[in-house]
Amino acid sequence: MEAEAGSAVRLKVFNLNCWAIPYMSKNRQVRMQHLGDFLNQKSFDLALLQEVWSERDFESLRQKLLPNYTWAHYFRSGFIGSGLCVFSKHPIQEIFQHTYSLNGYPYKFHHGDWFCGKAVGMLVLEIYGILVNAYVTHLHAEYNREHDNYLAHRVAQAWELAQFIQHTSRKADVVLLCGDLNSHPGDIGYRLVKEWLGLEDSYLETQDFQGCEDGCTMVPSNCFVNPREMEHFPRGVRIDYILFKAVSGFRITCESFSTTTGSGPEDTTRNSIPLSDHEALMATLSLRPAPLEQNSSSRRDAETQASLMGVLHEAWTEMGLGLAAARQWVYSTGHLFSLGLLLLFLGVGALLFEEIPWVAEALFMILGAIVLLGSGGLYLTSLHESKALYEAQAEIELAMEMAKEIQPETVELSSNSSLLRTTLQSESK
Amino acid sequence: MEAEAGSAVRLKVFNLNCWAIPYMSKNRQVRMQHLGDFLNQKSFDLALLQEVWSERDFESLRQKLLPNYTWAHYFRSGFIGSGLCVFSKHPIQEIFQHTYSLNGYPYKFHHGDWFCGKAVGMLVLEIYGILVNAYVTHLHAEYNREHDNYLAHRVAQAWELAQFIQHTSRKADVVLLCGDLNSHPGDIGYRLVKEWLGLEDSYLETQDFQGCEDGCTMVPSNCFVNPREMEHFPRGVRIDYILFKAVSGFRITCESFSTTTGSGPEDTTRNSIPLSDHEALMATLSLRPAPLEQNSSSRRDAETQASLMGVLHEAWTEMGLGLAAARQWVYSTGHLFSLGLLLLFLGVGALLFEEIPWVAEALFMILGAIVLLGSGGLYLTSLHESKALYEAQAEIELAMEMAKEIQPETVELSSNSSLLRTTLQSESK
Repeated sequence: MEAEAGSAVRLKVFNLNCWAIPYMSKNRQVRMQHLGDFLNQKSFDLALLQEVWSERDFESLRQKLLPNYTWAHYFRSGFIGSGLCVFSKHPIQEIFQHTYSLNGYPYKFHHGDWFCGKAVGMLVLEIYGILVNAYVTHLHAEYNREHDNYLAHRVAQAWELAQFIQHTSRKADVVLLCGDLNSHPGDIGYRLVKEWLGLEDSYLETQDFQGCEDGCTMVPSNCFVNPREMEHFPRGVRIDYILFKAVSGFRITCESFSTTTGSGPEDTTRNSIPLSDHEALMATLSLRPAPLEQNSSSRRDAETQASLMGVLHEAWTEMGLGLAAARQWVYSTGHLFSLGLLLLFLGVGALLFEEIPWVAEALFMILGAIVLLGSGGLYLTSLHESKALYEAQAEIELAMEMAKEIQPETVELSSNSSLLRTTLQSESK
Repeated sequence: MEAEAGSAVRLKVFNLNCWAIPYMSKNRQVRMQHLGDFLNQKSFDLALLQEVWSERDFESLRQKLLPNYTWAHYFRSGFIGSGLCVFSKHPIQEIFQHTYSLNGYPYKFHHGDWFCGKAVGMLVLEIYGILVNAYVTHLHAEYNREHDNYLAHRVAQAWELAQFIQHTSRKADVVLLCGDLNSHPGDIGYRLVKEWLGLEDSYLETQDFQGCEDGCTMVPSNCFVNPREMEHFPRGVRIDYILFKAVSGFRITCESFSTTTGSGPEDTTRNSIPLSDHEALMATLSLRPAPLEQNSSSRRDAETQASLMGVLHEAWTEMGLGLAAARQWVYSTGHLFSLGLLLLFLGVGALLFEEIPWVAEALFMILGAIVLLGSGGLYLTSLHESKALYEAQAEIELAMEMAKEIQPETVELSSNSSLLRTTLQSESK
């Protein structure tokens, strides 16, 4: 951050999904070394990283960046970690993390999200007296856009993210959200976070953009990107973001915004490999004091309000679809569990009859145990999923009721009866 | 809440751990009915409940309380639910919940905490223009005070609770924390939450107390309490609390505080059964506007500061002990996993030798599979535990560094080097 004329300050922010999975990601160590060199060379105020799955990689990076980024933190959660870490030039005053309630399924080993403990990491920094709340996150991956089994989970995560930021940033002057939302700009996940919090998108706000066409952050020209995944997106996709807002008394403009372009950062040799399968984002934000009136947008205009209500309703619906599916699984796996019990009892009961060969008895018991364990696990998973989706839906229902009441012309019900009405609606679903 | 002369308002708060476990808790339905009658009769502003494990019980209660408590919410999490719910006379404006990262072990079926998704539930209420953030929680149970296997988990939960309240209440005028902390007043869990947040304890602050001796909330005279558990505590234990603080421009006093006394609420017939195995807490708080100076205690006095540092260090140490144990489990179960793999390979390899009876082969394979599954599960559990404790320790380390810096005479290191030093310390543990 540099102090400018007219008491404005510049904040240089870097964001990258590093794709650093030990034993799986290609050229991981070389790429992490390049990343360290690049961050040292460019000297950002804040570098927020995702998918740093190995704490050793974080530690190597930390050692390397020590001269320029004195403060660092790795967010630990789940079985593997959150993959999230941050390097800062400015003292980190507070850290906190919130792990998402929902994050895929344990039996989807090949996807692995469940094991990661996806979370949102929060840092509080005070820079020249400006209180900056920076958030870094990584939402559930999208493995199949046409048949996205994780949409409800991702939307629930986006809602939790929005809620977490909303409630923890009430005293912040500046809010910064960086990360891989695994949502295109038109997707409900991105719109929910952006509209609910009133965030600005660095790519959309800047006058000076350099990088991939349409601001894409995964492009076919990147040698690590699977071309099949980009079949329907010849220019690539935009799923990584640097979002911001000034909460009070400040105005933020995005002076410049750039992305790497598939073939490594501009400053290294032309033949270098890309830093990751995602492109890095670099934003220079300018923070200026502003009269309080300019930012007091607690009463949204009618158009923004209508759009927000639409987004909330869309998120509510997606969660509802997920909830219905989860409840169906609870029902089916409950029955399967009974079948397992029956098999086990048959196996044990058969011991009373000498004429039944013991191999058959053992087979029944083993089969029973396998069905019991499997269906029991699935039952618990679906039960947990339904609880979490129901909670998120209830929270969003209340948010819709309260948002309605802000808009005077659409108030139809007294505040006392509204929550109960929606609760009843969801009860009867 | 009643408006008083001199623009003070009264807030009547009720808290109870309901002990409402379907099929397990004695006289559950009768007790829940009594609870509903009692709440209707007494007319509190806010009733915060724990251990309402069945959503049907919540729904029955909600229907019954509808005339007096128009707003209600049940916090859903984990497999069974959080057990937390709230009934309010005043409109609930916002709800949010944070599930604790650590909550016991899945293989401790008989304790069951792991399945509950213990959490802190948050409500935002605006009462006569006063912004009240109310929190309800229930920390991990203590099954054996002498050999408390869950101490590190409970301390980590207490820290997460403190962090969550700290970060989400920055714009609140009044903070209210109710619930079962499963910690005695001298225990680290209670002291950590109370001292870090600067909360006041209704029982300690009131001039007008009626109820169990020493304010105990589990007493031997309650017919549902196991006398063996109270062997070392003839008067009972105090583990449920109503804590509060005024964040800005307000002064709170606890006008009166009472507990039930084992034999049912005073207003019902003498022969009635108690409401729960815990006693209910009832506080009447008086909120008065106060000059801002009275509350601006951001710079703590030396004694409070020293006490806080002691508490933080104690919590850090407890987590460290838990972390060391968890890492030992990661190590042991990792080896057990290898043994399982070996057994499985031996079983499969034996298929090549005709002279080995197939029963032996099958036995090896089944044994291998059981060891693999068991040790794999334990490995993941311990890995998750170690990540969560490490994260909590890192957060508390930073808090200690920042707390040190508030106290000018003890600043030893520049802020830039301090986090790194502590990070290095913990790395080398």
